[in-house]
Amino acid sequence: MTTALVEKEILEINEQVEEQLKVVMTLDIQTDVLRQLVSRVERATAKTTTIPIMQGIYMHITSDRITARAMNSNYGVEVTVQRDEKGKNFTVVDGVEASVVFADKRFVSIVNSLPRKTTRMVIEDKKVILKSGRAEFRFNVLLGDEFPKFPRLKDTVSFKIDPTVLSRLYDKTVYATSSSETRPALTGVHHVVKDKVFRLEATDALRLAYIEHDLHADVSEIDAIVPASTINEVMKHLKDAGHVTVYFSENHLIYEMDDSKIYTRLIGQNYPDIQRLIPTNCVTEIQLKAEDLSEMLKHANIMNPNDPVILKIRPQDKQFRLMSKENENGVLVEDLLLINGEGDNIQLAVSPKLLKDSIDRYPKGSVIRLQFLHMHKPIVIRPLNDDKQNLDLVLPVRMPTLNPNDEVIIEDFKADVQLDIYKQSEEEVEAGKEE
Amino acid sequence: MTTALVEKEILEINEQVEEQLKVVMTLDIQTDVLRQLVSRVERATAKTTTIPIMQGIYMHITSDRITARAMNSNYGVEVTVQRDEKGKNFTVVDGVEASVVFADKRFVSIVNSLPRKTTRMVIEDKKVILKSGRAEFRFNVLLGDEFPKFPRLKDTVSFKIDPTVLSRLYDKTVYATSSSETRPALTGVHHVVKDKVFRLEATDALRLAYIEHDLHADVSEIDAIVPASTINEVMKHLKDAGHVTVYFSENHLIYEMDDSKIYTRLIGQNYPDIQRLIPTNCVTEIQLKAEDLSEMLKHANIMNPNDPVILKIRPQDKQFRLMSKENENGVLVEDLLLINGEGDNIQLAVSPKLLKDSIDRYPKGSVIRLQFLHMHKPIVIRPLNDDKQNLDLVLPVRMPTLNPNDEVIIEDFKADVQLDIYKQSEEEVEAGKEE
Repeated sequence: MTTALVEKEILEINEQVEEQLKVVMTLDIQTDVLRQLVSRVERATAKTTTIPIMQGIYMHITSDRITARAMNSNYGVEVTVQRDEKGKNFTVVDGVEASVVFADKRFVSIVNSLPRKTTRMVIEDKKVILKSGRAEFRFNVLLGDEFPKFPRLKDTVSFKIDPTVLSRLYDKTVYATSSSETRPALTGVHHVVKDKVFRLEATDALRLAYIEHDLHADVSEIDAIVPASTINEVMKHLKDAGHVTVYFSENHLIYEMDDSKIYTRLIGQNYPDIQRLIPTNCVTEIQLKAEDLSEMLKHANIMNPNDPVILKIRPQDKQFRLMSKENENGVLVEDLLLINGEGDNIQLAVSPKLLKDSIDRYPKGSVIRLQFLHMHKPIVIRPLNDDKQNLDLVLPVRMPTLNPNDEVIIEDFKADVQLDIYKQSEEEVEAGKEE
Repeated sequence: MTTALVEKEILEINEQVEEQLKVVMTLDIQTDVLRQLVSRVERATAKTTTIPIMQGIYMHITSDRITARAMNSNYGVEVTVQRDEKGKNFTVVDGVEASVVFADKRFVSIVNSLPRKTTRMVIEDKKVILKSGRAEFRFNVLLGDEFPKFPRLKDTVSFKIDPTVLSRLYDKTVYATSSSETRPALTGVHHVVKDKVFRLEATDALRLAYIEHDLHADVSEIDAIVPASTINEVMKHLKDAGHVTVYFSENHLIYEMDDSKIYTRLIGQNYPDIQRLIPTNCVTEIQLKAEDLSEMLKHANIMNPNDPVILKIRPQDKQFRLMSKENENGVLVEDLLLINGEGDNIQLAVSPKLLKDSIDRYPKGSVIRLQFLHMHKPIVIRPLNDDKQNLDLVLPVRMPTLNPNDEVIIEDFKADVQLDIYKQSEEEVEAGKEE
């Protein structure tokens, strides 16, 4: 071989090597699979950080799995897709392993707009090409190595729980967390495990939510405050989860579900002892359908948003009246015939928004109990047949025109208006509703 | 009769009279009928005026009809509901005639939240009570007498037109109006009737829309500019209209439909002669499906909103390439095989948003023609088989990197990417689309 030939060969090899280095991976993927992967992690991207890589979506691709990850200052989400047997969901056409971070804000909308059922993804060093049908989107990415990994937790306590149950427990409590950072402990939901009971508590000092669930298994004691933003994210993943295990360490927690993991920091504060805030007795108790009260509060919100409503209750007569604050624009009056009532007449003012938040946590058709001690003491809301495991508190609003000693007068009580000419059609509607 | 008795009787009569004066009217109405009436006029309420009554919805009620009206500085809408034979839609229970103005901003949301199929409306002087089911909304209203009436037009020229046709003519033109008030004439659509032809024109100086419709009837000459906001409102009413007659006077216009009337001011300006802007020849003409180009422009908008795209066209090879501007973030390349092409190669830059606006006015499945004269001259868009009655112009963007004398090079043209492993499923998708 002449030197010239050798040189030519070396050049050719060099070119091939460079070409191989350039194209790291070619992947064919069902567009829906890619879309779902992206949509399940994208909410977790940090929206306000100044570090570009943290705004991005990390993706690690091997021949048999794709792992996507996104993180913010509170929590991180990791979702994995396994290659199915025939590679119908995705197939690596070329390459062994690639990891990139899509930090370009347009990435999500580009993925959502990909026109065809399948997409080819070509990863070249710091560039990715997405081809779907005629469209060929080329854009710059960051290297995946720099993206933070999930920490490994040491000394964890864990328990398994039914995802539907955990979802319900969270729905029942997270609404009552505080959005103000002045008392960080209140921005999370307090998780306590003790004596086989899993207890969740939340309060923003105006209302309080409390629920218990029997674990039927010995678990070491847990006392942790999980940020509300994490819980809102977790609830979205629980919908599709078949199982979930929760691992607690001192400062962190991991939810492990079928194909996803959510990692979160814990709020390192002491949670206040809220059990002592719950009234142990009452002078008035009433029973009503949660959805009836919810509808009344909805009307009140439309009439005067942000204004308290006045509740007038005559339990012996089963009379319940809700009135908006009367002002220059008008007033809303709405009467309800109670299912049951006991104790003294009472009237008080309350924020319709706060009360509705609690009421709406009860399933459709359910009957709830409202307990009152005094015009200025918390209203206790409980499910009909469950004395201890679940309750909500709402603090009334002080209103100068209402006096605890005033007689509770409900004039012209009418629980339902029936219009003569439409009586029949109203009944039809009602019948239709119940079907 | 003793004086005391007489006095007592007079007092009683007085009370009765006062009571009657107080309650002007009681009306039972199907909630849906009320809701529709309100929703059809509410868009026309003046949002920015300082006169409270002009923000309101006027309602005039007699035993056989309800008329609702709302107005702003450009136009007014009036909708009428006739009582049906059996009074199933509404019935006046008490009273003869009432007219009120609902100026309370919550009125629309209250009407939308009324819980039952039927609603009772009690009008008392300056108060209205809405009862539906348990809810009883009481609020203050203004007297109807002060609400402006529709003016009667003098010396009108009018013609009937199919609402579907008028709707299409408006859809084809109103998009091209200007939103800038610096040249008021361009904020409206120019209406011209001459020699039995109804012509509409709109332009914002960057693009232009032109359409003609044969009236098949002798109508006096019309030359009027209708504000775009009026036309957008009229289009919503045309959807449900069985017929429409348009009455033009010197300064105003009225659309008269089945049960509604829209009254508008005209823009009192001279419209520019835009016919001379339309190129009469071209060096390149291509044919393609409107929806293909629309999809490509959608991708470009996602990739780089507000940035012009570059079109490269080789008509003899039927090659059409769209490229987004290449920047630090990436680039979009999309190729299309043309249905037909004639003339010289050409490349130019254009706003994807402006071009998409025009293209999207063509119905799904339709083939359109694009005509080019020069890199800096307007692009002419026409339907395939209609040379004179409809066209759109879009002005290209000047881009320093593009030179009219440069060769138009399209490297590595690929009109469609077929991924091997999914070939079959892609074909299935395509087959499914055509079904």
